[in-house]
Amino acid sequence: MIQGFNPRTGEPAGKPLAETTDAEVDAAVVAAAAALPAWAGSAGEERARALEAVADALDARAGELVPLADEETALGETRLTGEVARTTGQLRLFAGVLRDGGYAGAVASPPGGGMAEIRRINHPVGPVAVFAASNFPFAFSVAGGDTASALAAGCPVVVKAHEGHPGTSVLTAQIVTGALAGAGAPAGTFGLVHGFEAGIRLLTRPAIGAAGFTGSTRAGLELARLCAEREVPIPFYGELGAVNPVVVLPGAASGQGAEIASGYAGSLTLGAGQFCTNPGLLFVPEDAAALPGAVADAVGASSGAPMLSERIYKGYEASLAEIEAHPAVTAVAAGTTGEGPWGATPRLFSASLAEFAADIPVLSRERFGPAGLMISYPSAGDLIPVLARLGGNLVGSVHGDAGSAADLAAARQVVAVFERTVGRIVWNGWPTGVAVNEAQHHGGPWPATTVPAYTSVGSAAIRRWLIPVAYQGVPAELRPGPLAD
Amino acid sequence: MIQGFNPRTGEPAGKPLAETTDAEVDAAVVAAAAALPAWAGSAGEERARALEAVADALDARAGELVPLADEETALGETRLTGEVARTTGQLRLFAGVLRDGGYAGAVASPPGGGMAEIRRINHPVGPVAVFAASNFPFAFSVAGGDTASALAAGCPVVVKAHEGHPGTSVLTAQIVTGALAGAGAPAGTFGLVHGFEAGIRLLTRPAIGAAGFTGSTRAGLELARLCAEREVPIPFYGELGAVNPVVVLPGAASGQGAEIASGYAGSLTLGAGQFCTNPGLLFVPEDAAALPGAVADAVGASSGAPMLSERIYKGYEASLAEIEAHPAVTAVAAGTTGEGPWGATPRLFSASLAEFAADIPVLSRERFGPAGLMISYPSAGDLIPVLARLGGNLVGSVHGDAGSAADLAAARQVVAVFERTVGRIVWNGWPTGVAVNEAQHHGGPWPATTVPAYTSVGSAAIRRWLIPVAYQGVPAELRPGPLAD
Repeated sequence: MIQGFNPRTGEPAGKPLAETTDAEVDAAVVAAAAALPAWAGSAGEERARALEAVADALDARAGELVPLADEETALGETRLTGEVARTTGQLRLFAGVLRDGGYAGAVASPPGGGMAEIRRINHPVGPVAVFAASNFPFAFSVAGGDTASALAAGCPVVVKAHEGHPGTSVLTAQIVTGALAGAGAPAGTFGLVHGFEAGIRLLTRPAIGAAGFTGSTRAGLELARLCAEREVPIPFYGELGAVNPVVVLPGAASGQGAEIASGYAGSLTLGAGQFCTNPGLLFVPEDAAALPGAVADAVGASSGAPMLSERIYKGYEASLAEIEAHPAVTAVAAGTTGEGPWGATPRLFSASLAEFAADIPVLSRERFGPAGLMISYPSAGDLIPVLARLGGNLVGSVHGDAGSAADLAAARQVVAVFERTVGRIVWNGWPTGVAVNEAQHHGGPWPATTVPAYTSVGSAAIRRWLIPVAYQGVPAELRPGPLAD
Repeated sequence: MIQGFNPRTGEPAGKPLAETTDAEVDAAVVAAAAALPAWAGSAGEERARALEAVADALDARAGELVPLADEETALGETRLTGEVARTTGQLRLFAGVLRDGGYAGAVASPPGGGMAEIRRINHPVGPVAVFAASNFPFAFSVAGGDTASALAAGCPVVVKAHEGHPGTSVLTAQIVTGALAGAGAPAGTFGLVHGFEAGIRLLTRPAIGAAGFTGSTRAGLELARLCAEREVPIPFYGELGAVNPVVVLPGAASGQGAEIASGYAGSLTLGAGQFCTNPGLLFVPEDAAALPGAVADAVGASSGAPMLSERIYKGYEASLAEIEAHPAVTAVAAGTTGEGPWGATPRLFSASLAEFAADIPVLSRERFGPAGLMISYPSAGDLIPVLARLGGNLVGSVHGDAGSAADLAAARQVVAVFERTVGRIVWNGWPTGVAVNEAQHHGGPWPATTVPAYTSVGSAAIRRWLIPVAYQGVPAELRPGPLAD
């Protein structure tokens, strides 16, 4: 049985839900496969209208969705209201992508050298399995970015709901299913399954053509392995964990110290630190006298919040125990513990660059929650080689004084390292807060993502679900619509 | 030791060559990694000129390259002269891709909703390992499409030479290295290693960012596994085997029977059938009275040629023994055996659709050589579900009479199946002969390729070596050239 809980009380939220049986999973996949020809073959405009219908329906029911999600996640009404808007905004973004048409990648090469004309266009990869995340009950869940982009691409979708918000998942799925049916989408275009075993079975059904996942590194790598070991392997687009290094350069440390301290604490504790974009590592200049104290004060003055689940809370506590016990690390600040049995305490630790460099695997580990490690570095020259040894991250941030030649010179080196090790580089800002637009790249080198060439946020996310087919000398009446001319 | 052989005589060709040692492999990778910042950071125009210098140098030495390759492969002067031109054409194509600049995927999204401006651009993935193929000593070898596209992307390249043409590989590498140095490319931009163990070591060096491979399904899947099991997995773009079904529809069978028969035999026996695009399966209508005989006559009148190596020859013979012993299969024609100890004999076999459908795994197996299986089908309605059960292929061909409503209706169904199961659909033509242009897609669903979203031929091949990075609020002076504005 799947049971949601109220993180503010630890008490059950809503009724228990049966796990999806093998037969039910298979039926959802069969229905998705049956829907594929009609959904894949529908005009972009039809799918655009269907996505907009889903967006409109979700917006219309936000008044029910938000309190339900708040009961199951304790993320708060403001955040969740914003997240519904982001979610419906994503659906409408992809409607725009469909109307623009560029996603299809239609291109023609004229005949030449004895070779016939070739035209190429992208086709949907097949039914897609989407694994919902715990920390975004809307934007990375049942009707989130993976679902929106896959549906836009022409792929039917079967979502494996996250067990942390089952009631929200069921209501969202009902709304999505109804809106799609009302917009004329074939039955089976969308399905929902519940339970760990159901997710495994879903991923291993032969008809599934690709999978999207947002979640922990451990779970993601395990599912990636299953995909690779299928009789026919499929692409697994996993967006996993990250520690997202932030580098403060000397000019910024002295000129913008107060803003940096409060900004850091804000980003670190946002959403109880339960973001893959959480700034887990903060590199500050050794001689930035005031900054470490200001950061410690800001984190000390911050407040925690209920974590999403007992499992996440216990994981955070274990992670804190690990770093507290580390001989190279000093505990420097603790904020106010969040309410309820699973309330997170914001924490700040510190280490020197040399100490950090001596145990990067442990000290750069993601601690899913509001825990930061502040690392003091002697000079940019010392920092750069250590920074280059970090694993792949979603985001790297650098704070500098654009008017300082020294900061700019150091920033150039930091950016050069980040260009090889992160998916997004932020200047004088924070990694949390991911804009949903055309230029966004929410990805990054392994293990931040399993397929670093792709993004899971923004218009380009649709590319994960498309594969090209070339048509050589094929008459217009046999080519797909956009290639027909 | 690596020893080339003359396929026309079975005698050694050239002197034996030492296998590359572990230390030498490591040195090549260290040099490639050291070259990365300068090569990746060079302007597109610089890399374009370097690629053109390589092309010019290869063209200037074609008079030496062609006889050397002919001695090691017996592919013949005409074919090899054409292949050098294709190879230098590919290098110049990517020079054009660099000058066009679209490959960089530069895009900007304006600030909005409290979010800073984001710009995104593609970066080279890192040093690339290229595994050369036996059957294209130039176009898919040391200076072939993988090398050209990776160098264009800004990736240093280390090639694992194919042991079938070591002398050609060494001379090509000397020419490439000299031309790159003359064009100002950093030392280490290009390297060459020899030997099976050297290839494995190359693939597993941490500094290697991606790999390209053209060759057998067995070798490709083994290397793909190694890439997936690395501490940091890397993308492995393998172009593996295929049987490339050809469907002849009734209208074409009656109206174009003679051209189809001679065209099929020509495509089947081209290059002694040693192409991944070889048309291994020919589906003909049961009631096409004259066609099967005409195809049998054409294959019977055809000539074989020396195969590339004893290993390939023995593999082909074993593959023939397997299909000859199959109870459902009839041997219907044999052409003239090629010269030398490894001369291939063109062969044609036949089976009914029902017999074929009863053992698809064995009967749709690639037989690397000029062996075709002709399958007679009762009706398009019977054929379609069987066709849909084939594994992924690089190419699917359909021959039809565009003036026949029945052929067009059946072709629509065949194309719909091919759109899910092949990378390129050919109308009234043959799968061999792969145009190198913008619209080409030389790829296909697993196991035709290990990453079906990408092509290994044509301009789009550069995409395999690029990963995006987003810049959020980063000042112009810290952004890469094309994003600086």
